[in-house]
Amino acid sequence: MSVTRAPGTASSLQLCRIMRPDDANIVGNVHGGIILKMIEEAGCIVSTRHCNTQNGDRCLAALVRVEKTEFLYPVFIGEVAHVTADITYTSKHSLEVQVKVMAENILTGAKKLANKAALWYVPCSLQNVDKITEVPPIKYASEEKEEEGRKRYEAQKMERLETKAKIEEVVPPPPSPEQHTVGFSQSSLIHLVGPSDCTLHDYVHGGVTMKLMDEVAGIVAARHCNTNIVTASVDAINFHRKIKKGCVVTVTGRLTFVSNKSMEIEVLVDASSLVQEDKGKYRAVSAFFTFISLDKENKPLPVPPLKIDGEEEQRRFEEGKARYLQSKAKRLADKDRQQ
Amino acid sequence: MSVTRAPGTASSLQLCRIMRPDDANIVGNVHGGIILKMIEEAGCIVSTRHCNTQNGDRCLAALVRVEKTEFLYPVFIGEVAHVTADITYTSKHSLEVQVKVMAENILTGAKKLANKAALWYVPCSLQNVDKITEVPPIKYASEEKEEEGRKRYEAQKMERLETKAKIEEVVPPPPSPEQHTVGFSQSSLIHLVGPSDCTLHDYVHGGVTMKLMDEVAGIVAARHCNTNIVTASVDAINFHRKIKKGCVVTVTGRLTFVSNKSMEIEVLVDASSLVQEDKGKYRAVSAFFTFISLDKENKPLPVPPLKIDGEEEQRRFEEGKARYLQSKAKRLADKDRQQ
Amino acid sequence: MSVTRAPGTASSLQLCRIMRPDDANIVGNVHGGIILKMIEEAGCIVSTRHCNTQNGDRCLAALVRVEKTEFLYPVFIGEVAHVTADITYTSKHSLEVQVKVMAENILTGAKKLANKAALWYVPCSLQNVDKITEVPPIKYASEEKEEEGRKRYEAQKMERLETKAKIEEVVPPPPSPEQHTVGFSQSSLIHLVGPSDCTLHDYVHGGVTMKLMDEVAGIVAARHCNTNIVTASVDAINFHRKIKKGCVVTVTGRLTFVSNKSMEIEVLVDASSLVQEDKGKYRAVSAFFTFISLDKENKPLPVPPLKIDGEEEQRRFEEGKARYLQSKAKRLADKDRQQ
Repeated sequence: MSVTRAPGTASSLQLCRIMRPDDANIVGNVHGGIILKMIEEAGCIVSTRHCNTQNGDRCLAALVRVEKTEFLYPVFIGEVAHVTADITYTSKHSLEVQVKVMAENILTGAKKLANKAALWYVPCSLQNVDKITEVPPIKYASEEKEEEGRKRYEAQKMERLETKAKIEEVVPPPPSPEQHTVGFSQSSLIHLVGPSDCTLHDYVHGGVTMKLMDEVAGIVAARHCNTNIVTASVDAINFHRKIKKGCVVTVTGRLTFVSNKSMEIEVLVDASSLVQEDKGKYRAVSAFFTFISLDKENKPLPVPPLKIDGEEEQRRFEEGKARYLQSKAKRLADKDRQQ
Repeated sequence: MSVTRAPGTASSLQLCRIMRPDDANIVGNVHGGIILKMIEEAGCIVSTRHCNTQNGDRCLAALVRVEKTEFLYPVFIGEVAHVTADITYTSKHSLEVQVKVMAENILTGAKKLANKAALWYVPCSLQNVDKITEVPPIKYASEEKEEEGRKRYEAQKMERLETKAKIEEVVPPPPSPEQHTVGFSQSSLIHLVGPSDCTLHDYVHGGVTMKLMDEVAGIVAARHCNTNIVTASVDAINFHRKIKKGCVVTVTGRLTFVSNKSMEIEVLVDASSLVQEDKGKYRAVSAFFTFISLDKENKPLPVPPLKIDGEEEQRRFEEGKARYLQSKAKRLADKDRQQ
Repeated sequence: MSVTRAPGTASSLQLCRIMRPDDANIVGNVHGGIILKMIEEAGCIVSTRHCNTQNGDRCLAALVRVEKTEFLYPVFIGEVAHVTADITYTSKHSLEVQVKVMAENILTGAKKLANKAALWYVPCSLQNVDKITEVPPIKYASEEKEEEGRKRYEAQKMERLETKAKIEEVVPPPPSPEQHTVGFSQSSLIHLVGPSDCTLHDYVHGGVTMKLMDEVAGIVAARHCNTNIVTASVDAINFHRKIKKGCVVTVTGRLTFVSNKSMEIEVLVDASSLVQEDKGKYRAVSAFFTFISLDKENKPLPVPPLKIDGEEEQRRFEEGKARYLQSKAKRLADKDRQQ
């Protein structure tokens, strides 16, 4: 068995992985987010396993808190990150997992402590995700250890209650504009260009850019009609300017025109280098995507009309309508010719 | 054999891939962007290969234009998408690739035409990416075919010139705020929650959320100081509200405090369901990330000071400073205790 | 330190990962290729680490052979796969790693042995990838262990030489439309090798190649029997030629033999550089995969017979049958011995 356990317990776990180019920035430093994700995976496995060691409802451990975490040593591509997770405290309905990350250079044998973290989980029943099940107690090495754990438990409980009160008082995110307006569904994403997005020239593949554009357009369409939506067509796209590895790409989508059964979304792609400031931000690509809304049998549904606000939106709407009518006419002509 | 070639030629290519859960939305429709990415991959391979069939500089084909593309039939998870790419026209410095996508249900054997596209590529020298090399001519089945190709070539050339003029006249994206202000580096990304982001409960893994948070915080930090940046620490994070599969997550990062050698970034995670409109948008998580800027020897660099604008930013700056001083005092105390 | 080692040695390693929706087919069975990729990752780490434990050139371990591998128990989404790798034999220039895969259901605590494999690596110098460095010897538990290892070493060495001679012959047949013929289910995929597929040497990880091979073999099997299929075993695979970053890999699968309840698929991997056409296409790897068809209770289903067309197919069918009978006889003999 691959898991090292004290007999009869299930309270420790180790996992490891080689760091790849996609895990790191262009100078080879592994992103902190990759390390946090590995830490949480180890914590989730060890706590889910522990909470299912007694009879009763099957449950999954859900992360409720991560204590302050220091990145002690940068990890590099080609190093092996070893993650060790141990259950260090259990209360009736929660448990603490302490996780260590060692970075090992398998060429030189050098090892450094890259990270130490403490995470709190609660077990949620598989039948009913809102039901918190009971946590089987662990055995402590000494009474002091248990007492220290209890102190950490009380401290984090207080803090969670405080921030819970705070998060609920915070006015939720900036008031959204009125539904079915252009502003309501407008969306943007940013994407840091990584090695796998690029050709051997270190420029982004056109296909990667189109995938991001479709992703944003799909979110705009779904926000407008709150149904299952699919891409119906894409207007001609011209790639005038290249996007280099290490750039940040901002992809913005906004509705321009809506017919009875389709939505036209303009998608704009802006690129900017993070390290070569002089280059500034530039428009790399733009295109029009058309989406339709589908019911459960994959048949087209009517689309809510678009509420237009201001001259600029009106102008874009008219242009979109012209494109829509032209393409409809072309489809009909093609059909006639085929008959 | 996947590569159908007439003897001695390299002008056709087929690729296929099974559609996976992460390629599709929650009802199983494969995203249009996944199809576009496969189309471009096939186009890029067939045109790069063709452009290297003669002596001269080694080159990579770069996508310059995609013609209007219709999605004729939705593709589903578990189907195999077959992409066939053929070179259909060559000018002196560009080539047209026509691509067809067939979706095959490998359980029933049913096949449908899902997509047809036409892409234009130009070969860029591997030595000098700005040098366009020459395209070896293809043989046409008939003079008519060649003539039709020439017409398509002329038409797209005109359109590319037009949009090039247009894209340059377009006022570039909304003028960015002044450098080193909070607004200058503030960034957000949106992410559509997919199956591989989730537990068996269909709720997002905490580790996935933290990875997205670190990604945004890193972009904010890099925008502020235009250098290589790494995560130094993360303050305690509380996960009060769960995020379900199919939600859109908006992750926003903004600078709150900057010391001589570190930046504190507040990261806010808002979630909203795309299909259950009633639920609305809610704040799921928030946290403070601290980043440092590194030189080539991985030594900390000074960070440009933050330009504060308004009372709200001043208040957040003071709060950040308090956290910074507290954590510095704690580090010193820990050091003392260890000695 | 997270890695369990006998003091002073570096010859053992464990890694684990939760199985996600993208790792599995639509009924939840994890693809054999995902397991093979994890096995190879563990083998690569443990052997690279071991080969760098003495002074001399820094080196990376390259996979040269995988012995016949049986999939003993299917793995499902949500289970944790634990992979344990141990160095079990060292010759002057190669080493054997034995790997075990346990699947753990963290809800029920059930654990099953999913897979056992043996892999052979050779250390390639980081300075000069064509230079094979020396392997530090391991200590054996007993003289018998060492002697058994030496026998395995001699046996695989012979076999690698034999297949090396044989490898260039195969010419794939043209596809045919009639159901249950070889041509009907024959499939290929192409893959452009990206940075995350590669080692620090910029050569493709053996595990990445095996994952692609399993993917194609799975499509062939599903096309033949239109049911849920899983990998049952993989015959010994020899990696004679390396594949470099930026290459296009064509992976082709075709049925060679079908018994009542199993299908044997030959998978051929050809690599070619996109930009150095002169280098030509070469056969990098080939192997035989055996798949079985499962009903909803994961019980084996009968497989439709294979329609053979022509002498070449008949010859391959007979050879496949011989392999099938030999492996059946071996299984029975092993059973007898255990009783």
